[in-house]
Amino acid sequence: MTDLNFELLARDGAARTGIIHTPRGDIRTPAFMPVGTAATVKAMLPQSVRETGADILLGNTYHLMLRPGAERIARLGGLHKFMDWPRPILTDSGGFQVMSLSALRKITEEGVRFQSHIDGHEEFLTPERAMEIQRQLGSDIQMVFDECPALPATHAAIEKSMALSMRWARRSREAFDRQSSEERAGRACFGIVQGGSFADLRIRSAEALQEIGFDGYAVGGLAVGEPQSVMFETLEATVPHLPPQKPRYLMGVGKPDDIVGAVLRGIDMFDCVLPTRSGRNGQAFTFQGALNLKNARFADDPAPLDPGCSCPACRQFSRAYLHHAVKSGEIIAAMLLTWHNLTHYQRLMERLRQAISEARLADWVAAFRTAEATDA
Amino acid sequence: MTDLNFELLARDGAARTGIIHTPRGDIRTPAFMPVGTAATVKAMLPQSVRETGADILLGNTYHLMLRPGAERIARLGGLHKFMDWPRPILTDSGGFQVMSLSALRKITEEGVRFQSHIDGHEEFLTPERAMEIQRQLGSDIQMVFDECPALPATHAAIEKSMALSMRWARRSREAFDRQSSEERAGRACFGIVQGGSFADLRIRSAEALQEIGFDGYAVGGLAVGEPQSVMFETLEATVPHLPPQKPRYLMGVGKPDDIVGAVLRGIDMFDCVLPTRSGRNGQAFTFQGALNLKNARFADDPAPLDPGCSCPACRQFSRAYLHHAVKSGEIIAAMLLTWHNLTHYQRLMERLRQAISEARLADWVAAFRTAEATDA
Repeated sequence: MTDLNFELLARDGAARTGIIHTPRGDIRTPAFMPVGTAATVKAMLPQSVRETGADILLGNTYHLMLRPGAERIARLGGLHKFMDWPRPILTDSGGFQVMSLSALRKITEEGVRFQSHIDGHEEFLTPERAMEIQRQLGSDIQMVFDECPALPATHAAIEKSMALSMRWARRSREAFDRQSSEERAGRACFGIVQGGSFADLRIRSAEALQEIGFDGYAVGGLAVGEPQSVMFETLEATVPHLPPQKPRYLMGVGKPDDIVGAVLRGIDMFDCVLPTRSGRNGQAFTFQGALNLKNARFADDPAPLDPGCSCPACRQFSRAYLHHAVKSGEIIAAMLLTWHNLTHYQRLMERLRQAISEARLADWVAAFRTAEATDA
Repeated sequence: MTDLNFELLARDGAARTGIIHTPRGDIRTPAFMPVGTAATVKAMLPQSVRETGADILLGNTYHLMLRPGAERIARLGGLHKFMDWPRPILTDSGGFQVMSLSALRKITEEGVRFQSHIDGHEEFLTPERAMEIQRQLGSDIQMVFDECPALPATHAAIEKSMALSMRWARRSREAFDRQSSEERAGRACFGIVQGGSFADLRIRSAEALQEIGFDGYAVGGLAVGEPQSVMFETLEATVPHLPPQKPRYLMGVGKPDDIVGAVLRGIDMFDCVLPTRSGRNGQAFTFQGALNLKNARFADDPAPLDPGCSCPACRQFSRAYLHHAVKSGEIIAAMLLTWHNLTHYQRLMERLRQAISEARLADWVAAFRTAEATDA
């Protein structure tokens, strides 16, 4: 297959910790991937993202194909060079964003025709085109092109959509395999399990993907508004049907306690805009729950945001300063709170890895849930 | 007077280079002060501002008194601690912003009554209150409260305004001197020459201020839309009437060639929002003139913004990336271009200081003007 090498270091129940070795660097799992949608993790310089402890970023095929364009990025030396991030990058295939952002979609067996949300021009995304774009970007982990149906939907509708996604998964894998061996060296292709909240469809999807064969397996179509319990039940139905020796990636998740629950159920990789988007919106994550820095109670608070955190927001500034910066709409508020939230997410992942490697995850999770319920 | 000690190192014509020694650090002159309006240099962390070479920041009394409030900043340990900038800070007195930002101003002999541009509440700013606010902020260089008349205006109108500003200057100085000697230690109070573009009024203002006695002398009421030639003529009329052993500060200036022309005429200190505001607007300064990164000609340009610059924007990214980030409205564009522009301004000041100390300023200025006229 590829040079991607997943070394499992320890298990604790269904949870695992390990290292995905890639030519561009190791990815410690469970891993959180900050989202660098348009070739930037919003409000962060790339070296600062690395300082938070991130081993890998996520880039969005949909956004990058529209602006500045995958061909342009290829001419400029690829996405890593373009955005000055030399470490691993995972790119999604554009399928989810086509559904959530673009207008006038038309889905056929061949692919999806849609209008750009930026300037309205028409684009056509197919499994082959999605893989070609990811090749041009130089992505280390390339995701198959899939259809993401809106929930809730009937069993029949989800089944039809899942079957289409599986046919697209095969075309995606074949397109990836047609990339030259030189280009593919060190790059991986992940399949995406679909099937909504129906266990039978999830199992069929997981089996269909393994027949094709992938370097890792993602769970897609979740974190689209369903209750956390539905997400966890779907993971419990799905994960046992994925090959244990391959990385498992839960797409678009999530809140800290979503991540903890998914790690408990055997997930290795995560991405989510929550820490960055919340940071731009004045919200800060701590192990004692989230704080809204807009709140007037912080106006005179000389304490650091989180005394246990070593990010610049916590080391250099008071809650009073952060409140002032948020209320004043200053860019530094977005910079500092994004930095803090990404640091917090990486601290969470480090604690999860540590707890798994020491076989004390259940105790750690119990303490985590108690602390999250208190007020910072 | 105070601990402020201005050490003149070299002269070249009317230009000078030196060091203002303060307890919080040295200020190399000619100096450019980045503007940190609301306790942040917009889109920059304070350590990054220092990395650009800045020795001193400017803070705005008007903004800080309205939000978060000077009393609050005092309770939190002062402006330096609040914004994590341990080096010198100069604060203006609010006079200029009262005129340019607030609504429903009423000027009396006592002071200015106005409405906050944020929430409309009424404030009353007097020389005594302006100095009290600057004391609460903990400002190292405190500016007298003055009136800034709109130009053009008649000789009679400017004369009347200047005379009021001189009475306010005396009250400001007296208020400063009433601060406890412990608080004043290491802090300075600067007067502001007014008089519009009338040489006779400027001279009378300069003499009136020296009768009061200040630690430094600013030239105010310029950079309000008048032609550069008028600004330079006003400096030529004013500067010879200022004491040579004290720092001279041209408020709110300016474009790089404004600064060069003012240094040639004996000015030691500058502040301006241009590098930071332009950076947020996609404009980058270089020694070959300014670049508008929005321009489509940069979309495929793999070259660095300015090959001679060592800031992160120039070291880590291409013009194509910066163009993409500006066009996409990404915060990183504001961060990188602000960092670049502040670095550029500090490089300009360093070259001016070097040329003066080597007595080759005229030659350097000729070469500077030739290069600025070319296209980067």
